[in-house]
Amino acid sequence: MKVLLVFAHPDPRSLNAALRDVALKDLEAQGHEVRMSDLYADGWKSEVDRADFPLLAPDARLIPVAASKEAFHAKALTEDVSAEIEKLLWADVLILQFPLWWFTMPAILKGWVDRVFAYGFAYGVGEHSDKRWGDRYGEGTLAGKRAMLIVTAGGWEEHYSARGVNGPIEDLLFPINHGILYYPGYDVLPPFVAYRVDRLDKAGFDVLAERLRERMRTLATTPPIPYRQQNGGDYLIPIMQLRPGLTDAAATGFALHLDDSREALRQAGE
Amino acid sequence: MKVLLVFAHPDPRSLNAALRDVALKDLEAQGHEVRMSDLYADGWKSEVDRADFPLLAPDARLIPVAASKEAFHAKALTEDVSAEIEKLLWADVLILQFPLWWFTMPAILKGWVDRVFAYGFAYGVGEHSDKRWGDRYGEGTLAGKRAMLIVTAGGWEEHYSARGVNGPIEDLLFPINHGILYYPGYDVLPPFVAYRVDRLDKAGFDVLAERLRERMRTLATTPPIPYRQQNGGDYLIPIMQLRPGLTDAAATGFALHLDDSREALRQAGE
Repeated sequence: MKVLLVFAHPDPRSLNAALRDVALKDLEAQGHEVRMSDLYADGWKSEVDRADFPLLAPDARLIPVAASKEAFHAKALTEDVSAEIEKLLWADVLILQFPLWWFTMPAILKGWVDRVFAYGFAYGVGEHSDKRWGDRYGEGTLAGKRAMLIVTAGGWEEHYSARGVNGPIEDLLFPINHGILYYPGYDVLPPFVAYRVDRLDKAGFDVLAERLRERMRTLATTPPIPYRQQNGGDYLIPIMQLRPGLTDAAATGFALHLDDSREALRQAGE
Repeated sequence: MKVLLVFAHPDPRSLNAALRDVALKDLEAQGHEVRMSDLYADGWKSEVDRADFPLLAPDARLIPVAASKEAFHAKALTEDVSAEIEKLLWADVLILQFPLWWFTMPAILKGWVDRVFAYGFAYGVGEHSDKRWGDRYGEGTLAGKRAMLIVTAGGWEEHYSARGVNGPIEDLLFPINHGILYYPGYDVLPPFVAYRVDRLDKAGFDVLAERLRERMRTLATTPPIPYRQQNGGDYLIPIMQLRPGLTDAAATGFALHLDDSREALRQAGE
């Protein structure tokens, strides 16, 4: 397979960089082709601004959605963005790796998403009718590919558990896994999360590294998170709400968007 | 009151800028003191990197938590960051205003959080013992102040409702409201959210503006989101999980962290 890892830590001697190298080395040993976008090393620009849209007249209003649409269709995106889009089209698997800062990705990686996920490429794809509401949430340009997160957190695993004070990690990562990765079509694998990384010793690192290698070896076979497809019949169009009766009426939150029957299958297969 | 509005849209002629001006004008008319951080106009730097820590030796590893702690205690943060911290200490109310991009804030605003919310200021505050787990989630440097979000979204309100395909807006914003604002002590007001803003006409704008003015007039009196205080007895220390029995055993998700009794009071007061 072809694997793209997008890396967002400022120090090449960090734990994140060490884990990244464990992952890349294992993938290469398996015979996969590997590429890496090292956002800090590459001097990635984080802000969506006028410089992203060379076609925009100097006195025109910058409306990001409209400017992105125009630039994508005219093949007039900036070189750095176009290069990332090429890599995404090339890769069978996308890995985003980052330290959890304030319960989500660092700004530089959010800026990679904001700039690379162009209109016509990652959103604004497909027809809107009474049968479909665009190619998104399970369909889209990147359908058929897989994606996963590698995340490090300073806090304790218990604090990110079902009743932990930070909120459950799967809910904290839902806006990324569902909203950023599943949206343009990726099958999203459960994340790899390392906790309490500020006090990790050598033995702790070795355990973590072996757990990460195992995830790299099962990239092709790990069942994805069973999110519901938007246009598969579960949602009413155009209000895009889950059909009544599909879930317990009292159920709430992000977990509604998991297909329980597929989730049961996934757990049975574990 | 003193109000700080942090603004994150690249165009001064945008809908966001128009709404911002409605808010600022109304606040001033009420006699409040108002300041604004216009991140794009100010050329805000989004990335946490070595340039943020002048004390860090050139050959030293950059460990962001450790570097932030050292710089904050030595009063050696960069000028742009120190100026924002001064503004936060000055303001009674913080407003973050941004367009929802990929279900969260734009990179430039995340970079404001990543860089300004220093160790010793916004986290890493207070004692850790068997009675307390730091001053956070309802306690901390910014306790006694209020915060709220002003957010614009292209999508439909239905798509962000309890059963909407994007996930409920209150859950999408939980990592910001609870994880970024409540964490260092703010009382967090319900967000102001404007939907379908890509097709807004003059009449639609006027309705929105009046709704926003109403929120500006009730900044001091709107009941905050009733998040549970971490050290108030609801969480077990140090695992920081909600005590058994406080909520329905089957309950899940972010809503667990609302105090139902206070939530009922809040709704009764609406």
